[in-house]
Amino acid sequence: MASPAEQAQSLTPSAVQAAYTLIQPYVHRTPLLTCKTLDTIASTPQTPESLVGTPFEGQTPAQPKFRFFFKCENLQRIGAFKARGAFHALLRLIEERGEEEVKRRGVITHSSGNHAQALALAASTLHVPAYIVMPSISTSSKIAGTRSHGAEVIFSGSTSVEREAMVEEIQAKTNAILVPPYDDFNIICGQGTTALELEAQYAEQAGSKTLDAVITPIGGGGLNAGVATYFSDKKTKVFGAEPSFEGADDCRRGLLAGKRVEAVSTLTIGDGLRTPVGVLNWEVISNKKKVEGVYAVTEEQIKATMRLVLERMKVFVEPSAVVGLAVCLFDEDFRRLVEREGGDQGWDMAIVFSGGNTTVEAISKLFG
Amino acid sequence: MASPAEQAQSLTPSAVQAAYTLIQPYVHRTPLLTCKTLDTIASTPQTPESLVGTPFEGQTPAQPKFRFFFKCENLQRIGAFKARGAFHALLRLIEERGEEEVKRRGVITHSSGNHAQALALAASTLHVPAYIVMPSISTSSKIAGTRSHGAEVIFSGSTSVEREAMVEEIQAKTNAILVPPYDDFNIICGQGTTALELEAQYAEQAGSKTLDAVITPIGGGGLNAGVATYFSDKKTKVFGAEPSFEGADDCRRGLLAGKRVEAVSTLTIGDGLRTPVGVLNWEVISNKKKVEGVYAVTEEQIKATMRLVLERMKVFVEPSAVVGLAVCLFDEDFRRLVEREGGDQGWDMAIVFSGGNTTVEAISKLFG
Repeated sequence: MASPAEQAQSLTPSAVQAAYTLIQPYVHRTPLLTCKTLDTIASTPQTPESLVGTPFEGQTPAQPKFRFFFKCENLQRIGAFKARGAFHALLRLIEERGEEEVKRRGVITHSSGNHAQALALAASTLHVPAYIVMPSISTSSKIAGTRSHGAEVIFSGSTSVEREAMVEEIQAKTNAILVPPYDDFNIICGQGTTALELEAQYAEQAGSKTLDAVITPIGGGGLNAGVATYFSDKKTKVFGAEPSFEGADDCRRGLLAGKRVEAVSTLTIGDGLRTPVGVLNWEVISNKKKVEGVYAVTEEQIKATMRLVLERMKVFVEPSAVVGLAVCLFDEDFRRLVEREGGDQGWDMAIVFSGGNTTVEAISKLFG
Repeated sequence: MASPAEQAQSLTPSAVQAAYTLIQPYVHRTPLLTCKTLDTIASTPQTPESLVGTPFEGQTPAQPKFRFFFKCENLQRIGAFKARGAFHALLRLIEERGEEEVKRRGVITHSSGNHAQALALAASTLHVPAYIVMPSISTSSKIAGTRSHGAEVIFSGSTSVEREAMVEEIQAKTNAILVPPYDDFNIICGQGTTALELEAQYAEQAGSKTLDAVITPIGGGGLNAGVATYFSDKKTKVFGAEPSFEGADDCRRGLLAGKRVEAVSTLTIGDGLRTPVGVLNWEVISNKKKVEGVYAVTEEQIKATMRLVLERMKVFVEPSAVVGLAVCLFDEDFRRLVEREGGDQGWDMAIVFSGGNTTVEAISKLFG
């Protein structure tokens, strides 16, 4: 098998284009929305008082100008971009190994979240058996969601050692093929189709102007690496965003240290972003030519941003989805960059809302 | 001045068309969305157990088929359909009395909710002074929203007597012209443009088929009367929906009694629907040729429906917005009607989501 560095070289815009051709019949072309209220809020300097107690205390607040384009993957099938990668990985498996073998062996993954539901949906759509190993502490709605697509849910302990042991046990019985959640060539290409689609929609809405930048959340890094792959031969700059809570900003810290952080243990409210960046994903994201920078935001900033998106934009998102917008609203380093590079014109900036799988109970817990 | 019955005769589809021509530059063409998950849920019979303790206990659950088209007025300017009526009323005032007089005198209303913000927006857009009398107990976000459009907010007591006294006091000083929230010819025509727009969007999406039905919430009845006016010469059936809590279903009760209910005192969670139906609105809604029926739902049904719209459809709505969908999901009389009249084909049914002005705190209170 090719090394991660070699595999990364094959991650090209045309690989993303090929993925799109394959998955297009199975995924939604989610809307690209604008919101003048959020443009105005983000284009207003923060008050000096609001910077007190932050690393930016005492600085003159930046004056960036933003025109946002929100790619609403919360409206994607199963409520998250993960459907793109899961369909692509499974369609490639069928292409490479033949329908008969894949249907006989089935597919397996371990996930407590959106990837579980995405693979369950892709498998049921393509008539392939799916085994999903979920920690027994998973929320009941996610278990029900996964089962509703006909997948067999197997419970395990919650540590990664326990989960992987259970996957091996099921594989020994079934010979099911593993479809990893993010650290995988085909998953990355699938998630990258988000970029291709939003670029086309931006062109329809904004005419000939080039999209200045795009920012996505980074958990395992499948979405960000895919988006960066697609834009790697274009002028659009790619950025990543993470929560900072309990070291969830492993990618940002790894970039500073010049070395991937291999393990993370965090209970950030951005529950889709608790995993460390994958090995192949790191190859892409740590390439300065592909990703310009990764920023981190606090739990309070995520909550404040989520409130704005819900109450002002009227779009239902999960906390993980808004970390990119939170960077634009609160990170003075990033805001100064946009002020400097965007000038009077400002930036046309795409924000990927990665998912919308949360509950009213979870919102009550956050804001009650 | 013409009597309500005479005025009602001038409420015609072409009056709504004329309103649309006038307001089109000022309002959003809000999206008409579909959601297969909600179609499936609504097209599945309720379980006999779920009917226990309801008026439908012991009946065989109905088997209607629904294809929903959601008119998202929660994405309208100021987050509710009220922007349509407010712009229309103000533009007509300017047309009828001249710009100079309206700008000199200004406009006034009393409202604690969406009409306050809608009139404030219309007035600031058209450079007319606006005085909004709000109960001093109004939530701070609504006061801030109204002020953000430059309106002068005057506080009053919370009873209608206190509010109206304050309106008179301000009128005595300023000679400002009253723009009522719903019981008004021009307001009704403005809200009716919702119907015109959704019919056109439905035609774009569904081709030549006729929209079978539409259901809207009924508070003061401006939206429902407007929609019924627009569809009055068409085959599309119009229905209304109300909360039943503490007698908030004044319209439904009035129809049963053959007489408009003049006063209501309810604290239903559908806070936009706490007012009795207006006199002119009643003229339209009580006309069997215009509105086929009005149904009521419980607080628990509103909450369950709101949860579905937020969590499954990912659209942010206020409780008042979902009463129409709640009727489709839970009212066995209505469901049996759709089963009987829609047959195997089912109904293509538009649901007007009237607004999205709620907060994460309010959601926490509902579901926490």
